[in-house]
Parts: sequence; C-alpha cells; structure tokens
Amino acid sequence: MKPIYNFSADQVSLPSDFDLLAEAEASPYFADGLTPFSMDCTSEAYAELLTDTEETLRTLMGIPYSYKVFFLPGGEVQQFSAVPLNLLSDHTCADYIVTGLHSKSAYLEGKRYGDMAIAASSAGFIPAFSTIPKTKRSDFRPDADYVHICYNNSNYGTRFHEIPDTGNIPLVADLSSCFLSEPLQVSAFGLVYADMRRCLLPAGMTVVLVRADLIGSARPQTPTTLDYQRLLEEGCTYHAPSPICLFAANRLFHRMVSMGGLEEMKRRGERKASLLYDYLDGQAYYTAPADKLSRSMTSVVFTTGNSAMDERFAEAAEAEGLLRLRLENAAHGLCASLHFAIPYEGVERLVSFMMKFALENPKLSI
Amino acid sequence: MKPIYNFSADQVSLPSDFDLLAEAEASPYFADGLTPFSMDCTSEAYAELLTDTEETLRTLMGIPYSYKVFFLPGGEVQQFSAVPLNLLSDHTCADYIVTGLHSKSAYLEGKRYGDMAIAASSAGFIPAFSTIPKTKRSDFRPDADYVHICYNNSNYGTRFHEIPDTGNIPLVADLSSCFLSEPLQVSAFGLVYADMRRCLLPAGMTVVLVRADLIGSARPQTPTTLDYQRLLEEGCTYHAPSPICLFAANRLFHRMVSMGGLEEMKRRGERKASLLYDYLDGQAYYTAPADKLSRSMTSVVFTTGNSAMDERFAEAAEAEGLLRLRLENAAHGLCASLHFAIPYEGVERLVSFMMKFALENPKLSI
Repeated sequence: MKPIYNFSADQVSLPSDFDLLAEAEASPYFADGLTPFSMDCTSEAYAELLTDTEETLRTLMGIPYSYKVFFLPGGEVQQFSAVPLNLLSDHTCADYIVTGLHSKSAYLEGKRYGDMAIAASSAGFIPAFSTIPKTKRSDFRPDADYVHICYNNSNYGTRFHEIPDTGNIPLVADLSSCFLSEPLQVSAFGLVYADMRRCLLPAGMTVVLVRADLIGSARPQTPTTLDYQRLLEEGCTYHAPSPICLFAANRLFHRMVSMGGLEEMKRRGERKASLLYDYLDGQAYYTAPADKLSRSMTSVVFTTGNSAMDERFAEAAEAEGLLRLRLENAAHGLCASLHFAIPYEGVERLVSFMMKFALENPKLSI
Repeated sequence: MKPIYNFSADQVSLPSDFDLLAEAEASPYFADGLTPFSMDCTSEAYAELLTDTEETLRTLMGIPYSYKVFFLPGGEVQQFSAVPLNLLSDHTCADYIVTGLHSKSAYLEGKRYGDMAIAASSAGFIPAFSTIPKTKRSDFRPDADYVHICYNNSNYGTRFHEIPDTGNIPLVADLSSCFLSEPLQVSAFGLVYADMRRCLLPAGMTVVLVRADLIGSARPQTPTTLDYQRLLEEGCTYHAPSPICLFAANRLFHRMVSMGGLEEMKRRGERKASLLYDYLDGQAYYTAPADKLSRSMTSVVFTTGNSAMDERFAEAAEAEGLLRLRLENAAHGLCASLHFAIPYEGVERLVSFMMKFALENPKLSI
C-alpha cells in the first residue's frame, strides 16, 4: 500500500515513523506502566518533562533568556484575547496588519479590548490577500502598544519575508502555520505564539514566547489562565497542556535538534516547496494566486480556476491517499501544507497526481 | 506481573482494557489512516464525533434539552473565571460554599470579578474541611447571581450528599472529581463543569453544561473562548478540544451506557468505597478524617496520623504497583481515588497492602 499523506493546513499528522507510544516506552518519564495518556501534571516526571521541553526549544530556536516560554492548552484563538489583555497599556491602542483569515480574526477579537487600527492590509489586492503589504515605521501609531501580524497565511499561501520595522513598538506574531520551519530572530519580536496543530503536532497545545518586560501589566480582570504573570506565579500545573501533547512536542523538538536544527528544517522545506512551485510555474492548468515575492514555504495555495474542478481534484486526490488538499474556506481553492510530517516523496506524489489529473480532466468537461 | 493501579486524585489512568488506538481503528471516524491524533477539528468526521459524543452524554446523564453542552480544551481552572464572567449580572455578587482546595480557588478567582461572599465554609471544623456544612436558603444573599459549590473534595474525602437549596439562585457545581460516578439531577443546577482528568480520562478536556437561559449576558470584554454565547456562535471548531480527548470521552460514554448507565456506575462505586471504608472503620492503625455523613465515594482520604509514615506508606505502595496515593498537598495524608478505571480488585489489593503495611510498620518505629 502506498503511504498516505495528510496535506491539511488545519491539522497536521505526525510523521509516519513517529511512534509516540514506542518513544514513551523508551523515555525516562513513564515508569511503572504510566503512559503519556495517564501522566499526572502534578508529578515530578511532568515537571522534568516540561523543563526538558523548554530547554530543547530554547536550544532549537536560540530563545534569549529574557523571554519566557509558555506551553498552554487549547489553540491560537485564546491568544487573540490574551495579547491585548496583557499588552495594552493605558493608551489601549494597537495596530494590526491584515493579510488573511487569522490576522483578521485576531484583529476582530483585539478590537473588543481597545482602539485597534488596521495599519496595512492586502484585502484590496487582486486577488485579495495575494501579497504581503510593505510597511514602514511611520505606518504605525507611535503610541500603539503593539503591532500584530500573522507570519504565514495558510489560506492564501503567503508569508512575510521581511520582519516589519516597528521601531520601539513590540511586534507580535502568530507563527502557527510556519512554526519551526526555519530559523527566526526571536529578539525582533515582543511576543510570538504558535498553535502546534497547524504545522507540527496533534491539536491541544499552543506555544507562547514573551519578552519578560512585557509581562506583569495585564488588565485587572484578565482571567488567570490568560494572564502571563499569573501563570508564572501559579506554576506549570495550574493551566497545563495535556501530557501527551507536551510529550509529543518534546520528542519533536529533540528530533529537530538531532536532524540539524532549523537551518536543516529550512533546507528541507525549501526543497519541498521548490518542487511544487517549479511545477506550478511551468504549466498553465493550475495557477498559484500568491505573489511570487510573498510566497509561503509551508502553505502552497493553488487552484484550477474553477471551484467545481477544485472539488473534483480534492476528491480524486483523497482516493489516491493525498488527503485534505481542499481549503476549509473553499473559495480559496486548494492548499498543500508542506509541514514537517510531509516528506519530499509526498510532494513528488502530489506533483505526479497533479500532472495526471490535468491530463485526464480537461477544463471544458466542467 | 501484577496489574498496576494509579490511585491519583489529580490525573487518572485509562482502564487497562481501554485500547484507544484499537477502538479508533474500529470506529467510523478514522478512515484513510488518520488517527485520533491527526484528526482535523474542521472535518466532517470531527463534527460527527462531536455530535455523537454530546448525544451519548445527554443519554447517559439525562441532560434536558434546555441545557447546552460544551467540550472545551484545558482544565477546570478556566471555568473558575468563565462562571463569573458569564453569570454575574449588574448585581455583580455571588456566594460560594468553601469545602476544600478547589472551592477556595474558585472563590479567589471569582473575587476578582465581583462581590463574592463565603456563604458557608467547613474550614473551621476539626479537622479542617472534614465535613460539608449544612445550609438553608436564607444563608444566601437574595441578589446573588449564583451559588458555587465543589461537589466532591478529593483532598479531604468529602462530598455533598444533598444538593443545597438555593431557591431561585442558580447553583453552579464543579463536578470534576466525581463526574459520572452516579445519577445527577442536572435540572437542580444552573451550570456544572467537570475537568475530565480528575476522574475519567487523560488531561485535556473540560465538560460544561449550562442552562440555556443563563447564556448570553457575559461581560462585554469576556474573551471569546470563555464566553458561552460567543462559543455557540463561533461553532465547535473555534475552541475545540484535542480530537484524542474527545474520542476518548466518546468511547467512555458509550462504554458507560452499555454497562448499564449511571445507576450501575453508582452500584460499582459504592461497592468499591464500602470495601475500603469498612476496612478503615474496623481497625485503628489508619484514620479517615472525613465525617461519616460527608464521605466521598470517589476520593477516600486516610492517614496513619504521621506525615513521615504516610510518606513511607506511599513509597512502599508504589513499589507494589499501587501508585500516587500521596496527596499533592501532603499535609492532608493519603487519598485513594476510586475512579472509573480502578476495578474492585484494585481496592482489594490496596486493602491487603494496608493490612500488611500496618503489621510491618509499628508506629513506634518513626
């Protein structure tokens, strides 16, 4: 049987050779028949696992010690609220760059807490959101408490290739759909967060890195589970992610380190993305709407130009074991999420299938 | 090898014959090689799983259709905030009955949002929190927006045996450490919540049942992930628990239905608890501090009366495969959480061990 590849941009699969239960049996954390399923968040083993996971992530990303690291249950949407609740000062204003669905959702949630402005948007481009707008420091209000971006836009296949210059204003980035796909200059950001399910692991955990000086002035009635200072005070067991999610992250981070770190992740990612983009650029059946200079390396969006044909494509791909290529918001076409678990061979299979489908489905047939 | 039993009151294990991966392979939700680990929260299969899980829980508990059911990521502590944020009206006052650690934590978090009063407490009893205080309707402020209780107190081995009469004031209960251990009159409560990890499943999901008329008047700046009305509007994918937690709950609820429902859970629970309490009541080496009329069926707290001996007991029990009998807050002694995954044979093993330990460790040796 041919391997199955899950190209979902919403929920990735684990690599096929990543056997969590076997890794658990070989790890020091699960003595006495306990499993990552039954580990106790209040146990010493959990505390050791948490410490090791944080240290390994710090090594992998080169996180400065002036940044705190949080592993939190749930998804990125909770951080859409936590960011303004923690970072808004008495100015209560912040600027957002809107480049797709998630950055817009973050803006709409933020607007509930203060005077939020859209400093730049790619909504007006044709096609909409097909590029990343250029910004300069003067585009941001000098009293803004932060500037928020979504670093990679899986629904539109775009990403930031340059970190916006916001001067002294802390930059906040949602990294969910490109986390750990390449080296990142953490010190350029005040806060970054990543919902692990969008590019790395089973759903259930979000990673947050916050510059320590930005912690400690949350609004008075911020729920404790969203207040970074209170979370530090209460300790890691107060609002802990599922041990199975933490353990999976631990093994993944170690694996990435042993594979050569984020430079190697970038090299592999570029090789996969190039294969697909080179094919897309050399034919006329499919189009990739994203501006070439804004292309994402982890989310390759393309379309046959016809919604019914896109649907037929996704269905036929499923039958071949190439799963979840249709975007949730079907108006945007098809997206291949080339995340960690998708090997080069998976992209080769996809390109072969695209060639075959184009031959067998002339557009006049719709 | 003898079976291992995890008696933790913080994080239960799955029953030893509960093989989630095998159940996943036999279920209709995981076609095409997907697993509960890689299921997509935005997929149709996830929506079907969610619907079936809710319907099965409604059947099991007899939940009236005037109650909404939420499956949320994370633990009970987030509901300590969500309850006041959603239920406080312009009166902004609510009453708490404090009977242990969790009810006190809920009260302290609630106090951040309004005028909270302790309507009754068992802190002053000797030993502290060894009973459940009696209350009458007049103990509660007539303009209180709700009365909050923790139905079972795992750290003190007590539980409510009668539902407090609060008149027209909605009663809110944290059911975490006794959820689904017996039939419950849901209509007696305005809201109940249960962190599944404390008595049923791996960490990662909290169940909330809310009477529909109490939904829709959250404070304006309540984070969307804590606002029941907004969660209903945004749909199940906005703030979804890990599919693996939802799937585990689904299988557990079905299993409980097929075993005979909550009446049968109660019968089994009483049989297990009686075995341990009968032993405790018939000897003098160990004491069970909880008042007999307030005893918990799911959390049996006992002590040798000496902290160092309790420590020795817990260590020796671990070596025999009887895990996590020491309470997190060691001042309270030992606790056997007799949750769903602990069979009658597990309690027999524990009682045998207790007899042996008492013989081999005369108290003079400390």
